[in-house]
Amino acid sequence: MKAKKSEDLPEWYSEVVVEAGLAGYAPIKGFIYLHPYGYEIWELIRSHLDKRFRETNHRNAFLPVLIPESLLRKEAEHFKGFTPEVFWVTMSGDDQLSERYAVRPTSETLFYSTFGKSIKSWRELPVLVNFWNSALRAEIKSTKPFIRTSEFLWQEGHTIHATKEEADEEVMRMLEIYREFIEEKLAIPVIAGYKSQLEKFVGALYTTTLEAVMPDGKVLQMATSHNLGQNFTTAFEVRYLGPDGQMHYAWSTSWGLSWRVIGAVIMVHGDDRGLVLPPEVAPIQVVVIPIYYTDAEREVVLEKCRQLVSRLKSAGFRTHLDDDMEHTPGWKFNEWELKGVPVRVEVGPRDVSERKVTLFRRDELKRTRVDEPALEGAVKELLSEVQRNLFRRAQELLRSKLSEARSFEEFARALEEKGGFVRATYCGSEECETKIKDLTGATVRVIPFEREPPLSPCIVCGREDGVTAYFGRAY
Amino acid sequence: MKAKKSEDLPEWYSEVVVEAGLAGYAPIKGFIYLHPYGYEIWELIRSHLDKRFRETNHRNAFLPVLIPESLLRKEAEHFKGFTPEVFWVTMSGDDQLSERYAVRPTSETLFYSTFGKSIKSWRELPVLVNFWNSALRAEIKSTKPFIRTSEFLWQEGHTIHATKEEADEEVMRMLEIYREFIEEKLAIPVIAGYKSQLEKFVGALYTTTLEAVMPDGKVLQMATSHNLGQNFTTAFEVRYLGPDGQMHYAWSTSWGLSWRVIGAVIMVHGDDRGLVLPPEVAPIQVVVIPIYYTDAEREVVLEKCRQLVSRLKSAGFRTHLDDDMEHTPGWKFNEWELKGVPVRVEVGPRDVSERKVTLFRRDELKRTRVDEPALEGAVKELLSEVQRNLFRRAQELLRSKLSEARSFEEFARALEEKGGFVRATYCGSEECETKIKDLTGATVRVIPFEREPPLSPCIVCGREDGVTAYFGRAY
Repeated sequence: MKAKKSEDLPEWYSEVVVEAGLAGYAPIKGFIYLHPYGYEIWELIRSHLDKRFRETNHRNAFLPVLIPESLLRKEAEHFKGFTPEVFWVTMSGDDQLSERYAVRPTSETLFYSTFGKSIKSWRELPVLVNFWNSALRAEIKSTKPFIRTSEFLWQEGHTIHATKEEADEEVMRMLEIYREFIEEKLAIPVIAGYKSQLEKFVGALYTTTLEAVMPDGKVLQMATSHNLGQNFTTAFEVRYLGPDGQMHYAWSTSWGLSWRVIGAVIMVHGDDRGLVLPPEVAPIQVVVIPIYYTDAEREVVLEKCRQLVSRLKSAGFRTHLDDDMEHTPGWKFNEWELKGVPVRVEVGPRDVSERKVTLFRRDELKRTRVDEPALEGAVKELLSEVQRNLFRRAQELLRSKLSEARSFEEFARALEEKGGFVRATYCGSEECETKIKDLTGATVRVIPFEREPPLSPCIVCGREDGVTAYFGRAY
Repeated sequence: MKAKKSEDLPEWYSEVVVEAGLAGYAPIKGFIYLHPYGYEIWELIRSHLDKRFRETNHRNAFLPVLIPESLLRKEAEHFKGFTPEVFWVTMSGDDQLSERYAVRPTSETLFYSTFGKSIKSWRELPVLVNFWNSALRAEIKSTKPFIRTSEFLWQEGHTIHATKEEADEEVMRMLEIYREFIEEKLAIPVIAGYKSQLEKFVGALYTTTLEAVMPDGKVLQMATSHNLGQNFTTAFEVRYLGPDGQMHYAWSTSWGLSWRVIGAVIMVHGDDRGLVLPPEVAPIQVVVIPIYYTDAEREVVLEKCRQLVSRLKSAGFRTHLDDDMEHTPGWKFNEWELKGVPVRVEVGPRDVSERKVTLFRRDELKRTRVDEPALEGAVKELLSEVQRNLFRRAQELLRSKLSEARSFEEFARALEEKGGFVRATYCGSEECETKIKDLTGATVRVIPFEREPPLSPCIVCGREDGVTAYFGRAY
């Protein structure tokens, strides 16, 4: 690693993504590809979330990647919102198509015209479906792997309900699943709440969001969950026969989480040596490194390492033995630190003879020596401790980037000095919200679910009895 | 089910796909979407294969869905082969792109220009990567879900090796993994061998294939594994420093299996009542159906069913309790038979009092009654028996559709009367192969790996010492 995280976060970020072997730049500007090490993090994310989705009765399915333009146009606001970012297919072989097809920017329209069509009675509701796929939205700004790319891996959940209340509950249920996942598995604390009307998903009744703060003070949206009201069901004629014998338009929700959370993991936990992965999403949780000087030692140490790896694997840890003979232990230490492996087991000849092993924790860069028979227990304890410690450190980061402002001057100063979230009160109008954005670059990131008492009159227009919200400059 | 499988296979097929809740037709001609029940079959296929890929040191990764035209053009034959089927992106938002992007028809070109670029020395070889994604190839013929669609789910494996021998080994290793999977999990016997030069993958040195026969006598390609020689590595400058200190062009392979194998499962195993799923890929292996007449009975029977479901789940079977109160047991029997669930457990009041349960096997439509405490063992035994029996039946189907021909007349007659595979000898020239295709619609499906003695002179031109191959009319 050449760049320092504290000195040049963007440069450090680009370097760590490539050097740690997570991703690379594809031949089309704005697109990236993932190496196995990067993709395996996504597979772990998928497997954690999939389990929770299934426990809450959601099932996975498949929708095509192409969407006819006419379909996308059916919900007018939605179309207007997405159209500048859409990649259009206009030809098949040498033939001009009679209608353009959008490469999936999101699947609401396709979902209602397929899964929404067959619903007849309230007995068939709710419909709870999830899709793991990729979505495409042309990015004009410079590419930032995971954070700003024209194609991104994500999941999009889509559900249809009989009533607004049930849709409301679904929105909150899924946001809570995201919150739990992001805090407990990714070790990143978030602030939860509503988006403002200006910032909500195009076509939604309201959007709920989870937002996290990055070390440079910029704020990152981690996941969103939308109540789409009856906007789409009306446009797509999704109706059902109620127990009252009448036809009703259904209510719907959608919710999504993308690979940008990997970007957050990199920025929040990483350090000058590279990546630091939370054990819950680390493709390799434990790397075992043999240390020897002579051929005789080599044999003894390697044999011991193989035993330990086999024990650690049996105990359920994702374990890798680095028995490469090209490189020195020092080189390997650097390499696996760069790749963010949470725990390293070092085994030298003295360790073998004393029945000890040395454990190194990536987060605090500290060594301890433990009795070899107690290895599994020690590793388990250490992995939990790393996971907890990363969350604690991220909580400190969040706290250090939280401030309050009671006037526009305070607001602007807090943003300049600290960045992060600035809690402030505004009248709730789009006019003042836009003014704040134009003057400072900050947007309303979160409006807390529980209305908070005003800190002051509106920091722009001075109106009383406003909305207290978290503002920030976002990625 | 209205259509009969034996009377009208295409009609029966379309009906079963929709009525069993596997898939539906998307708004764009040629595209389908999958319901959860259909997608879960694909998830099981993925999980079986993924395990084998990992055991053989392959790792999953991610490549973008868009490929610049210039990249696709780099391997000339490859481009020529795919270009009539490519969907082209020409616009992003309102802007005309300066270069067209292909929506992924296959990822060879992208793979070499990303994963191929970083290779320096022979020590980094082999590179063994797999991608689970979807590919798009415009289909002009009428849509047949899973078998002929413009977008299909698949996996594409891509590997880079130092020598031809290693690439040869990889090709055969992966073909064998496919064969084992298709025969053992999908219960469909296949014939393995080479494709002819006319039928090979565009850009390949040679293609190996697994082919199965369908009940209508048509042949279906189940999976292919290609040695791409140095064609792509030359075009994409994928070179490595050998242990000899010289630069060498690498060798490469690719191999793929798509959701069309689900089409084969439907056609080979299904019957007039609908789908019959092999237990290994059945999203629900056991469905439990309560039978009762009075409210008092209902309580007792449902309570027993819940116990049994919990026991079956603990024993590791994918189990579903159909406790819906809208429908009669008879209706439910039909429904789950249509959906092809391999084993049904029926529980009535008499079963409860006698501590018995009734098991129904979907393949042979037969009931047996077993002691309730022995349920897990009986279900395990029955699922294995269903799996074995489906394979036996499919082997009989294959045998019944195999014939030999020693002249063109015999060949044409065998094709007309039986369809399936006709073993015959031809001189090996593209001319005679094309003539056979033009006159009969049959193509060379498989050339056995071990050269087989000629059955006759070439059935077209009469030349001696020809190639004995399996011909057939293909989907």
